[in-house]
Amino acid sequence: MRRVAVIGTGHSKFCFNSPKTQVELLSEVAIDAINEANIAPKDVQAVNVGNVLGDFEEGQGMVQSFFANDIGCFNVAASRFEGACASGSMAVRDAVMWVASGYYDIMLVGGVEKATAMGTGLATRTFAMFGDSRYEFPAGFTFPAVFALLAHLYSSKYGIPLATLKEQMAAVSVQSHEYAMNNPNAQIHKEITVQDALKSFMVSSPIQLQDACPFTDGAAAVVIASEEVAKKLSKKPVYFAGIGQASSGKLSSQSKYLPRIYARELASQQSYKMAGLTPKDMDLCELHDCFSIAAMIAAEGLGFFEYGKSGEAWQNGETRIGGKIPINISGGLKAKGHPIGATGVSQVYEVTRQLRGDMVDQGRQVEGAKNGIIDTLGGDGVLVSMILTNQ
Amino acid sequence: MRRVAVIGTGHSKFCFNSPKTQVELLSEVAIDAINEANIAPKDVQAVNVGNVLGDFEEGQGMVQSFFANDIGCFNVAASRFEGACASGSMAVRDAVMWVASGYYDIMLVGGVEKATAMGTGLATRTFAMFGDSRYEFPAGFTFPAVFALLAHLYSSKYGIPLATLKEQMAAVSVQSHEYAMNNPNAQIHKEITVQDALKSFMVSSPIQLQDACPFTDGAAAVVIASEEVAKKLSKKPVYFAGIGQASSGKLSSQSKYLPRIYARELASQQSYKMAGLTPKDMDLCELHDCFSIAAMIAAEGLGFFEYGKSGEAWQNGETRIGGKIPINISGGLKAKGHPIGATGVSQVYEVTRQLRGDMVDQGRQVEGAKNGIIDTLGGDGVLVSMILTNQ
Repeated sequence: MRRVAVIGTGHSKFCFNSPKTQVELLSEVAIDAINEANIAPKDVQAVNVGNVLGDFEEGQGMVQSFFANDIGCFNVAASRFEGACASGSMAVRDAVMWVASGYYDIMLVGGVEKATAMGTGLATRTFAMFGDSRYEFPAGFTFPAVFALLAHLYSSKYGIPLATLKEQMAAVSVQSHEYAMNNPNAQIHKEITVQDALKSFMVSSPIQLQDACPFTDGAAAVVIASEEVAKKLSKKPVYFAGIGQASSGKLSSQSKYLPRIYARELASQQSYKMAGLTPKDMDLCELHDCFSIAAMIAAEGLGFFEYGKSGEAWQNGETRIGGKIPINISGGLKAKGHPIGATGVSQVYEVTRQLRGDMVDQGRQVEGAKNGIIDTLGGDGVLVSMILTNQ
Repeated sequence: MRRVAVIGTGHSKFCFNSPKTQVELLSEVAIDAINEANIAPKDVQAVNVGNVLGDFEEGQGMVQSFFANDIGCFNVAASRFEGACASGSMAVRDAVMWVASGYYDIMLVGGVEKATAMGTGLATRTFAMFGDSRYEFPAGFTFPAVFALLAHLYSSKYGIPLATLKEQMAAVSVQSHEYAMNNPNAQIHKEITVQDALKSFMVSSPIQLQDACPFTDGAAAVVIASEEVAKKLSKKPVYFAGIGQASSGKLSSQSKYLPRIYARELASQQSYKMAGLTPKDMDLCELHDCFSIAAMIAAEGLGFFEYGKSGEAWQNGETRIGGKIPINISGGLKAKGHPIGATGVSQVYEVTRQLRGDMVDQGRQVEGAKNGIIDTLGGDGVLVSMILTNQ
């Protein structure tokens, strides 16, 4: 199969209560990505979109077709993907295959969500539809509760006292808020301290407000193309080196493996193998920190730290620029924001621009980065999509 | 790219008010398809699912991962597709590419929906989310209204008096109800006459109750495989010869072309070209008769009849077994039923079994059928997915 590259990127400001519709949000970032790719809308042959709750949020399904035709990508094949928070990554992964296979040369992939208008309470209940709705949600398993349970399991399995674990979790959030200060698209521009985190509102013990990402409105888009097309159009194409995706059943069916997320470990193995690379080869990582404990579990599942050791890694600066593996230099879901269907595409945007060396002006460039990995989790370990890019 | 075939099929009874969850409905038909394919659940490498309203209908998103792991397809990549009523066909089309490319050898594709529990009024409003929600739905464009408008345009453009058109539309429904009598999976087993149709409840003039498909609960699944695998496992593999997909913007943006559906005509051209076949080569067709006028428009868009002439074709029996092109011998959406996310997969089930010669016992075999085409429409012309199979 052919090599496939990102040749254009677009990203909205992530925010609360955007006055724009999802079609509008997606249209704007798509036009940016198309312009950066030096193509016209008519050159786009097909569109994939990650969008989880368009119907719930504003009564608009099939956003993929409406936005594509609004911006002049007339009559293209347009597909919407849903895998909860991993929807955007799934849309990218699928597009890579359509171009790699030779069927299409140029595709546009977008992600969009408006998750804030419904308010935090309703949004938390709505998001819980992406856990098991028959047995586990009625037992109280909203996502804060799920990750609280994982934190307790983590504490118990690795012998880390809860008070220590909470300080480690706080360190994850503190770093994300610090780096988000340098990301103009981030939703939250406010530094916090470990003490701020530990004093914040208790959501579901031991998860506190500052362990949790916000609800977010936003969109991101990328244009991808075959290597041949990419070399003609782009001075700095960033290639897809590996892709992976795996799923699990309901949370209770994963009990042997928790707090490790088996779907993640399979998906990362698939992408490392396809790329012929190992965790040691990675120069940066954007991973799914919906909660700070989720970030710690992810960093271990991706092979960067021993199990039970990632909290210390964050505390010791190993996840910072200049550290062992820079993680979530965008500010992550925690401070950049988490518009669910857009998140995976936003991560591809971030890593692409890092690998191109485009983040110098924003003061958060990972110097000389060649390989980046993108990890996106859907639901409570139910689906993980993985993308590995290099230059 | 490699040839890809259907090697297993499964189909639930379509019905009102199924007591089963979507995970259960999908699990049952998937097991049937897996058994027919002579494989075990562990042989399935990835899963695609068409599902439109799982979250709305029963508060369950990401049905693809939950059902896959419940039936023993552990940890596979599992993706959900949404393109309104075309979701199932999109899931099949996408899987064809993943197998054709060589990435996977065996995939399971399912479709499922529970659309009846919310009741007709709420379902009609809910479905309208798959039209444009910003300008057109607030102006009254639920789907019955859209297809009523298309019927008026059809009447006007082709000079067919409305009274004549209504008799033609009735003939479409009468045929579907007749053939559904021979389909044990059909939702409605009740023959109707033209007079029954013309006397039925007025929904949105000139669309009457007997011009409209019902709301339906149900599921369907197919196992697809590479040619090499298919030849080992199946005595009668049915191959994908062509695929197509196209979209349009909101209804008002399609006004130059209506009542023709441009996305359909593009998608069918793509699939005919890929297969190296023409409409004359087709031996049977399952097409998207969400309303009787939609069936007539589809049959013309697929190239079977001249524009404005398909109503007469139905009246003259050209769409029956033994006629020019047997259409919707399953009973179609009108009488077999229309569980939206499952419909495209159900159509593939029907055509596969027809091409294998398996419908003799049910008394609705299209003798000697070699080529079949499957047409699925999403929304008001917003998305069309097309699949062409042969043996």
